[in-house]
Amino acid sequence: MESSSHSSKEEIDKTEEEWSKKAWEILSKVRENSPLIQCITNLVSMDLVANTLLAVGASPAMIISSQEIPDFTPQVNALYVNVGTLSSSLLPAINSAAQIAGKFRIPWVFDPVAAGSSGFRLRACLDLLLLKPTVVRGNGSEIIALSRASCGTTKGADSLHESKDALEAAKSLAQATGAVVAVTGAVDIVTDGKQVIGAHNGVQMMQKITATGCSVTALIAAFVAADPTHPFEATAAALSVFGIAGELGMQAAKGPGSLRVNLIDSLYGLDQASIHHHAKISLLS
Amino acid sequence: MESSSHSSKEEIDKTEEEWSKKAWEILSKVRENSPLIQCITNLVSMDLVANTLLAVGASPAMIISSQEIPDFTPQVNALYVNVGTLSSSLLPAINSAAQIAGKFRIPWVFDPVAAGSSGFRLRACLDLLLLKPTVVRGNGSEIIALSRASCGTTKGADSLHESKDALEAAKSLAQATGAVVAVTGAVDIVTDGKQVIGAHNGVQMMQKITATGCSVTALIAAFVAADPTHPFEATAAALSVFGIAGELGMQAAKGPGSLRVNLIDSLYGLDQASIHHHAKISLLS
Amino acid sequence: MESSSHSSKEEIDKTEEEWSKKAWEILSKVRENSPLIQCITNLVSMDLVANTLLAVGASPAMIISSQEIPDFTPQVNALYVNVGTLSSSLLPAINSAAQIAGKFRIPWVFDPVAAGSSGFRLRACLDLLLLKPTVVRGNGSEIIALSRASCGTTKGADSLHESKDALEAAKSLAQATGAVVAVTGAVDIVTDGKQVIGAHNGVQMMQKITATGCSVTALIAAFVAADPTHPFEATAAALSVFGIAGELGMQAAKGPGSLRVNLIDSLYGLDQASIHHHAKISLLS
Repeated sequence: MESSSHSSKEEIDKTEEEWSKKAWEILSKVRENSPLIQCITNLVSMDLVANTLLAVGASPAMIISSQEIPDFTPQVNALYVNVGTLSSSLLPAINSAAQIAGKFRIPWVFDPVAAGSSGFRLRACLDLLLLKPTVVRGNGSEIIALSRASCGTTKGADSLHESKDALEAAKSLAQATGAVVAVTGAVDIVTDGKQVIGAHNGVQMMQKITATGCSVTALIAAFVAADPTHPFEATAAALSVFGIAGELGMQAAKGPGSLRVNLIDSLYGLDQASIHHHAKISLLS
Repeated sequence: MESSSHSSKEEIDKTEEEWSKKAWEILSKVRENSPLIQCITNLVSMDLVANTLLAVGASPAMIISSQEIPDFTPQVNALYVNVGTLSSSLLPAINSAAQIAGKFRIPWVFDPVAAGSSGFRLRACLDLLLLKPTVVRGNGSEIIALSRASCGTTKGADSLHESKDALEAAKSLAQATGAVVAVTGAVDIVTDGKQVIGAHNGVQMMQKITATGCSVTALIAAFVAADPTHPFEATAAALSVFGIAGELGMQAAKGPGSLRVNLIDSLYGLDQASIHHHAKISLLS
Repeated sequence: MESSSHSSKEEIDKTEEEWSKKAWEILSKVRENSPLIQCITNLVSMDLVANTLLAVGASPAMIISSQEIPDFTPQVNALYVNVGTLSSSLLPAINSAAQIAGKFRIPWVFDPVAAGSSGFRLRACLDLLLLKPTVVRGNGSEIIALSRASCGTTKGADSLHESKDALEAAKSLAQATGAVVAVTGAVDIVTDGKQVIGAHNGVQMMQKITATGCSVTALIAAFVAADPTHPFEATAAALSVFGIAGELGMQAAKGPGSLRVNLIDSLYGLDQASIHHHAKISLLS
């Protein structure tokens, strides 16, 4: 099975215990190797994205200027692209970084925030998909919008948020683009177009903190940088690790303000026992 | 009484108990309806503004590009505009969004940060006033600067920060523009040009947290979105609710760092009893 | 001894007790005078920079537009410039603000984030050095990159991170530019090109919080604004005060999330006894 152009055959048919070992293994690699992750992310998320990456031992670099990308991007271990506050001045930088990542075989991870919210944004996202992201991570609506526009699936608006539709859309998108596609929600799913993994960690209140979606996508970039030949596994592991940090952070949280603080503390302090105890990753199909 | 072109007659002559009921009612509507609030705010405030809106159940969208506004702005429940880090590239987007809000009768709320700090900014603010914001929220200096420039009041610089001058400036500005005008300070005041409400909640240390002013203006936008025919009441209620969250957050705060965290937790957890117990809103004149 | 073009003779040969008195004295001046600090800083750091300045009683102003700088910059007490998310649209604003600061003899402090990461950025930094910053604060790699490029020192890449090299680079850079140069790391050093002060405060986990480097540079700007004739002393005092706040914040921290919160609380609450007890500043050579 080829999960994407960047990955070799992955053994994703693991027991839950094997998955928790794998998640711990990749997190440990991030801590040891401190991969350099270039982040071209939206203006809202920069602080939490950088602190998420620092908390797991990665090295974030917010280099966002077209003038710097030709010098800088070839040196990074992964690129993370997010279109949350897209503008006509940022778009050329994003495209240039993604092209360089492709040329230098650097993994890149794409967060198509609010993909369907304007024609300008949807076209930009579709163009980026042509540059072959290693992983695409979105919520159900975003993945459905991209899948419809790029694969021609034409379901009615009524079904927009049904998780079944999101799963089908994710599979189509993965098949059409060669990317690993992750859809986050009550259950996070990851697919290469054939097989599907579910990651069942996290707490609902994380959705009340801005930029948690952006931050988990950045974490995926760090995990893929640490294990570039297994983006499918790395994506599932990152989603689970972020979710576990949320679960642990929730224990002493009084609301989304303290949960945000605890989430970073928990990411920083995560040990093997906690991951072993909490990780819930399984093959869905 | 017409408090603005967007509002019907409001019954603002309430007892303190009626006000606390009203504040709870509007907060509950925000939580139920999750209004979509487009925020074109300054770069410093994006994180706290988004987290403030999420904490009360609203749905923030930081869509700031001229390319996206024609598609996106007609769908939002309210628009929030803040000129804190104004630039010549951002200004056309702001103007375009405000125009569309006017055209589609979407309430929009304006935060004229540091209105008098440059000629460029003052002119931009005056132009925005011509686009008929539903509510303008500033501190005393900002409202005085706008009122002088737009209404021709010409007091000396010595009186800049006196609250009496701010009140007169707010009234003139409300009369000249048709907006509800709020001036925040030791006491927050709200006027439609005739009557004046005072909201006496909040703690001084909130001024030591960046973007609390921006965030309460965003909260006003969410409250006005939930009760668009009563912007005068919604503004007073939002100011009080934000202040109460600060008071509750202060109880366990050790400084502005923890107060910022607690403020969000308190906004999220606010119940009717707390609002009833703490709200201090009254008709001043 | 002339530590820079902006400073008079400084008595830096103090006992540790005299240094702690001096640090307290400057912090007290900041709290009393609330200097207005214009910050043109990177997009990641705006929140923490503003909150750091507010916590010590300074008044941050994130005015970043070329259109506003001619009106605004002449009024500020210090200018803080940071190139972390440099772009071709921001650079003219930075240059214009630095030029005005020079013309009006306003102290300005320069943070050359990732100076060597691209040719575009390195050239921009070298051009800014020609505009005579009062203080330059960077990590070892940044100061070495600037010193090599501006002073022609040509050590091999192997020695990049050795603190001895950073010290020599800092001295050369200070001599070539007339700036006070600070290099932060396990020990923070400050030099005017001749003498060298060490500030031994801080905790390692601060490096796991994004924008702590940017924030301490902003704090230097506030301290220099409060004591503009002694930038050498003010820089050492700011580094020590920030480090002490980190040490105190670390006592109850569970990770970088809570440390970030506690750091701000500690900066706000710092008293003379804590500074006296913790400050470790000494003349190194």
